[in-house]
Amino acid sequence: MQLREWLIGSPLPTHLMADERLSKVQALAAFSPDALASIAYANQEIFLGLVVAGAAGLVYSWPIAIVITGVLMVVGLSYFQTIHAYPNGGGSYTVARENLGTLPGLVAAAALMIDYVLNAAVSVTAGVAAIASAFPALWSYRVGLSLLLLAIITLANLRGIREAGTFMAVPVYLFIGVYLLMIGVGLVRAWQTGGTSFAVTAPPAQVPLTLVLILHAFAAGCTALTGVEAISNGVPAFKPPESRNAGLTLVAMTGLMAVLFLGTVGLTQYFAVVASSEETILSALARRVFGPGFFYLLVQGTTLVMLAVAANTSFAGFPRLASIIAQDGYLPRQFSFLGDRLVFSNGIIALAGLASLLIVIFNAETHALIPLFAVGAFLAFTLSQSGMVWHWWRTGGAGRWPKLLINSLGALLTLTALIVIVVSKFIHGAWIVILLLPLGVLLFLTIQGHYQEVARELTLTGLPPSLLPLPRPRIVVPVSGVHRGVIEAMRYARSISDKVTAVYVEITPGSGKRIRQAWEHWECDVPLEIVPSPYRSTVGPFLEFLDRTDHEHNDGQLATVLLPEFVPAKWWQLPLHNQTAWLIKLALLYRRRKYGKTRAVIDIPFFLRR
Amino acid sequence: MQLREWLIGSPLPTHLMADERLSKVQALAAFSPDALASIAYANQEIFLGLVVAGAAGLVYSWPIAIVITGVLMVVGLSYFQTIHAYPNGGGSYTVARENLGTLPGLVAAAALMIDYVLNAAVSVTAGVAAIASAFPALWSYRVGLSLLLLAIITLANLRGIREAGTFMAVPVYLFIGVYLLMIGVGLVRAWQTGGTSFAVTAPPAQVPLTLVLILHAFAAGCTALTGVEAISNGVPAFKPPESRNAGLTLVAMTGLMAVLFLGTVGLTQYFAVVASSEETILSALARRVFGPGFFYLLVQGTTLVMLAVAANTSFAGFPRLASIIAQDGYLPRQFSFLGDRLVFSNGIIALAGLASLLIVIFNAETHALIPLFAVGAFLAFTLSQSGMVWHWWRTGGAGRWPKLLINSLGALLTLTALIVIVVSKFIHGAWIVILLLPLGVLLFLTIQGHYQEVARELTLTGLPPSLLPLPRPRIVVPVSGVHRGVIEAMRYARSISDKVTAVYVEITPGSGKRIRQAWEHWECDVPLEIVPSPYRSTVGPFLEFLDRTDHEHNDGQLATVLLPEFVPAKWWQLPLHNQTAWLIKLALLYRRRKYGKTRAVIDIPFFLRR
Repeated sequence: MQLREWLIGSPLPTHLMADERLSKVQALAAFSPDALASIAYANQEIFLGLVVAGAAGLVYSWPIAIVITGVLMVVGLSYFQTIHAYPNGGGSYTVARENLGTLPGLVAAAALMIDYVLNAAVSVTAGVAAIASAFPALWSYRVGLSLLLLAIITLANLRGIREAGTFMAVPVYLFIGVYLLMIGVGLVRAWQTGGTSFAVTAPPAQVPLTLVLILHAFAAGCTALTGVEAISNGVPAFKPPESRNAGLTLVAMTGLMAVLFLGTVGLTQYFAVVASSEETILSALARRVFGPGFFYLLVQGTTLVMLAVAANTSFAGFPRLASIIAQDGYLPRQFSFLGDRLVFSNGIIALAGLASLLIVIFNAETHALIPLFAVGAFLAFTLSQSGMVWHWWRTGGAGRWPKLLINSLGALLTLTALIVIVVSKFIHGAWIVILLLPLGVLLFLTIQGHYQEVARELTLTGLPPSLLPLPRPRIVVPVSGVHRGVIEAMRYARSISDKVTAVYVEITPGSGKRIRQAWEHWECDVPLEIVPSPYRSTVGPFLEFLDRTDHEHNDGQLATVLLPEFVPAKWWQLPLHNQTAWLIKLALLYRRRKYGKTRAVIDIPFFLRR
Repeated sequence: MQLREWLIGSPLPTHLMADERLSKVQALAAFSPDALASIAYANQEIFLGLVVAGAAGLVYSWPIAIVITGVLMVVGLSYFQTIHAYPNGGGSYTVARENLGTLPGLVAAAALMIDYVLNAAVSVTAGVAAIASAFPALWSYRVGLSLLLLAIITLANLRGIREAGTFMAVPVYLFIGVYLLMIGVGLVRAWQTGGTSFAVTAPPAQVPLTLVLILHAFAAGCTALTGVEAISNGVPAFKPPESRNAGLTLVAMTGLMAVLFLGTVGLTQYFAVVASSEETILSALARRVFGPGFFYLLVQGTTLVMLAVAANTSFAGFPRLASIIAQDGYLPRQFSFLGDRLVFSNGIIALAGLASLLIVIFNAETHALIPLFAVGAFLAFTLSQSGMVWHWWRTGGAGRWPKLLINSLGALLTLTALIVIVVSKFIHGAWIVILLLPLGVLLFLTIQGHYQEVARELTLTGLPPSLLPLPRPRIVVPVSGVHRGVIEAMRYARSISDKVTAVYVEITPGSGKRIRQAWEHWECDVPLEIVPSPYRSTVGPFLEFLDRTDHEHNDGQLATVLLPEFVPAKWWQLPLHNQTAWLIKLALLYRRRKYGKTRAVIDIPFFLRR
């Protein structure tokens, strides 16, 4: 308990709720790292996709970046409209569900949840791999280090979102500042020294340039967009007015993404920077701009930390999405409960558990996880944008056409990217996500079916307005001997009923006789039944006795079982006692449900003092 | 349940008990493999101990074997007398405890239990290592294979001792037959061809021959004696007359051990057989006698199987010893309960668990486990023989002196061997056993102390002959809403008391008002209390309400807690419910014990149909 308080902090009362909201500056740090950090690998993917076609290919990186930025603008605009249309959050899930129906909504939900988990795992392992690249001695401990980093992020989030926001803000703004500085210095250098052509620097082409190649590089670069939806899911976490603040934060984030993405790709092309196979293209660009030294190392360092912090976006988004889905009854209700630090603790713990599982299964190999990534994000984008198209069609007035067109274009673009991603990455791991999606939807529907069934079984509808009171219960007490615990139990039993029977299950032949003598010596007014147990089990003969006595009395009720129970003073003493009471309770709850009638169980604890 | 029946068999009634006893032929197969198989490594240890001194050393193997056989005879004779003096079994533990006192008895018990566990682990890993030596592809799966072999032996023992005896008898008698054949054929060859001298065959001496070297080889060869005590612990497993049958089996086993040991060592010396570093001395002897071919492979094969079967001796001895110690209150009582197949199932499972732990920790390396072995056996021998000396001194008449002298000699010899083993193997692992022994004794004493304390707290002594009946209980029911489960609970509560209060813990502000409306609409005559929960916990505010209401009523009793509890139809539905009832019960049992008074807890299960 004290450890818990030291790690997570004291409980916070509910009325502090509004104070735990995020300012725009904090929210940008909490929700944007996933989106901003993805620029790092998107750059790399475009470069790797085009460099095989040599200079003829690399010159397409600027047009591709322009198109992707265009898609980003369309997607960003769509989510800006979504934030105002759906101020309670939910993003793609809510939009798809309300406009396209339950099933597309659940598909979007499953896709987003899978992507949140993957983002946490990919970001953490990529960060650890970067640290381990710098310090090779750490390489064989990557799984352990990834789990440790994940545990630190989990604890920070369990403490509460405001503190988590503060915790994460420093590296995020450092990353943004350092990258803006690099682009600024790069522009000055470009104005001073002029550019070069890829024809001078690029390695010779290995394959001819084709449309397929360009489309593939475009789709690979689209990973830059993963994480854009985080803000729209988290609208309720903003300080009021929530929609306005969330919208402005989205604009800031999308703008920053565009500047950083276009700036880095543009400078790369202007200086015709190429990278060797053992360096990232961003690293090569940073060295071209700053030269080797402090600022180069600063760019690399902040990139690594940003990648690690990107995992935190999942910890802001996943628990919120899970709580929205749980409120709709498609996930266990516990996900919608606020923990004592005013965060959705269960969602945070579930995400940490699933991400840990991925890290262990994939042995902390980022490269093995990447093909699973982005499928979910683009499926959710497509569903969300299609939902918005339908939304404008239904609700929009005369001015709906521009908005509808933007969303249609977005849906078309993200669908195209999705198809290219699925086709090109299918055998490398995308099939796992394709398989998990319907399983996730099935899980959602099964859970909701159960909750609906429970509500049906519990409803008071159809119940007669006044129920007859129950007769005084018959009580059966299993006893293991004649001692103080049994006496306490008998006194209680006699205080609530005059129909009490004690039962002794005789395992060692002859022991029953001794018990009966002790019982008679005690002069108790409760009759004692001795039940033989030829197979030396206590529970079986006791349950048979219950059946027999219920049958004999035939009074429409099941006998209440009263259990005298030892509670040892220390936990290690538990295995020294026989736990028969516990076994009987388990048998009554899970083996005896065939009756369909209620059999009450009364525990009379006897606290051992030492 | 069906799987359990297929694996272990149907329950057996207690009256079949006598039928499950072992005949002498079965008992020899069940109790002797440990002792007989230990000849295999004892031979090897003597050879390795002497060969460093060349021919001058090796000629001492025959005298050493004679002395060890002498010790064996003395130890065997002592246990023969013990079997008749203590027909209820217990061996070294009982003898040491009754004659030397509780503490020496417990030391002997801890020593024997450690040795049983080690024997199981050593025998299983040695068997698997032998198989893996023949099929190198299995080498990297030794841990898994050892655990599998252990699981098979465990299941055979859980089925019951008669079937276990039958299962193990074939390889044991095959081993005995093959070894007797080898000695017979060896004697014929010796008569036909004559012997050789070690001066011809032995490698040159590396160290001079010293008394220390001879003592060391003697002590190493004493491992041949491990397992001799098994029969004396297992007397009650024999068919009546138990002592007579056990005694005759002990004579047969000791005789076989002597014949096999002297026969193999004698032939080795007569033929002056030496082995290379990649062969055991028994393997070299078998090749010398039979030549390479079928019979050589048969000797090797039966040795391997016998080594594996030797693990079974522990499964016969450990559970019986544990049950005797448990009956004396030094181990959890569960070890003395007969399982439904008339075996001490808990002891079998505990042994399997501990041996598995050793196998995993020592990575299935027999060589790493051997230094831990034999310390326990010789400590138990020494204590047992000392106990017998005292026994004859106390109880013997005029004819006590021969028996007393034999036991004194035995005690002296086994003590000498023990000291040499501990000193020479201390840093190689014997220290672990030296450390575990006092911890085991401490565990025994702690457990017995707890049972005595419980007996004190439970005794009826000092209780007034007639206790006042308790007043009608006050009942508090935590409710989560107004539904059928709550209505069932209220009907039961009203049937046993008219002082019933329902309590709703209000986590979401405002929800209490809705519940009160539903409650009033239902027209229940039970008052409803709404308790606010600023920190969103259910259990804490409920416990505070209990304290408050007990304090207000001040009637000398604690309110009974009645818990309406959902029981879902399927196990996977459990995490979909909140388990508040379970948390409240846990808190009442373990956080609320400070009261020292009994607070009854009533469960009213509501069985969900689907």
